[in-house]
Amino acid sequence: MLHELPTLSHLLKVLQQVPYLASKNLYRVAAHFLEMEPQQIAQFCATLESAKKKLKKCDVCFYWQEVGATCVFCSSAQRDQTIVCVVETWQEILAIETTRGYVGMYHVLGGSVSPLEGIGPEDLTIDSLIARAENGVVKELILATNQTPEGEATATYIARKLKGKSIAISCLARGLPVGSSLEGMDRLTVFKALSERRPF
Amino acid sequence: MLHELPTLSHLLKVLQQVPYLASKNLYRVAAHFLEMEPQQIAQFCATLESAKKKLKKCDVCFYWQEVGATCVFCSSAQRDQTIVCVVETWQEILAIETTRGYVGMYHVLGGSVSPLEGIGPEDLTIDSLIARAENGVVKELILATNQTPEGEATATYIARKLKGKSIAISCLARGLPVGSSLEGMDRLTVFKALSERRPF
Repeated sequence: MLHELPTLSHLLKVLQQVPYLASKNLYRVAAHFLEMEPQQIAQFCATLESAKKKLKKCDVCFYWQEVGATCVFCSSAQRDQTIVCVVETWQEILAIETTRGYVGMYHVLGGSVSPLEGIGPEDLTIDSLIARAENGVVKELILATNQTPEGEATATYIARKLKGKSIAISCLARGLPVGSSLEGMDRLTVFKALSERRPF
Repeated sequence: MLHELPTLSHLLKVLQQVPYLASKNLYRVAAHFLEMEPQQIAQFCATLESAKKKLKKCDVCFYWQEVGATCVFCSSAQRDQTIVCVVETWQEILAIETTRGYVGMYHVLGGSVSPLEGIGPEDLTIDSLIARAENGVVKELILATNQTPEGEATATYIARKLKGKSIAISCLARGLPVGSSLEGMDRLTVFKALSERRPF
């Protein structure tokens, strides 16, 4: 019945381009927007447009910063300038910040090297990272890319680029998640937890 | 770090009001909008606003219709006017239409009776439905509300209202879904499948 309602089917098509709206949720989300008051829709749109206008990427770490303000990480006097945590996307910074266990700098790569999707090292912010690592201030890089083939390949690429430089390179610990049981865990995680075991 | 980025945290708050954006997806959806071109955002917003302007609910069945056009169901000469399928929301009509197994009319209630959420029969389109059922044309009502306590209570309420009227009232068959196995199915579904068994 959708082809006879071009406005509704166009709305569904546009919403479908938003990630994480699978086909069942799609209708519910469309219902949500159709039941909003016109002024609520205007507010929603104003928020999207102003976010686009008011946020830009930091030239150093590539996290978001308010236009006209300084980067919350790069300009902070409380944070350790000698250590840089390298992540694929800015969302990962939020995950690390919630732990309150890290007070160093960040570097957002903007993704991972993925030949299948046509993403090479030159499409990421790796050159800026290398330049940053050679500035004399940074003493350690933590490679916190995802535990995927692409994430690990990206980490390996960066580590190779910095080989021979006087900079420590580390990566996140791998093993059993907190609260997990061996029984429910996948084979590879158990293997990593065994082979990378540590003194008790 | 979000409180230092008011634009980003406002965007996240506004997106959080959209259903089905759980906290993990939320950041990905925000990333999607932040990476869109300004003109794509303008197009997205124009679609939302025009959908709101160009769609209205049919006065008879409460499904969406284009402003200025007639309802695709109520005005169709190919459909059986004597049978009305009663659903909670318009999304359910799409699910039924994909089966291509129903050519009758529809009636969208706009939800289900839920005392806990303060939704009574007067908040739904039940009065219009009763008036429709008494117009002499309709011979059968299919109560296709959801298999939830609220959905079943709504169906019972409608059935009671129409008691003694010369109109057939039916409901959807309950039982095992196609492709399911008894082992994986919940107790209540197995019980319904047993107690409402039919000749082979």
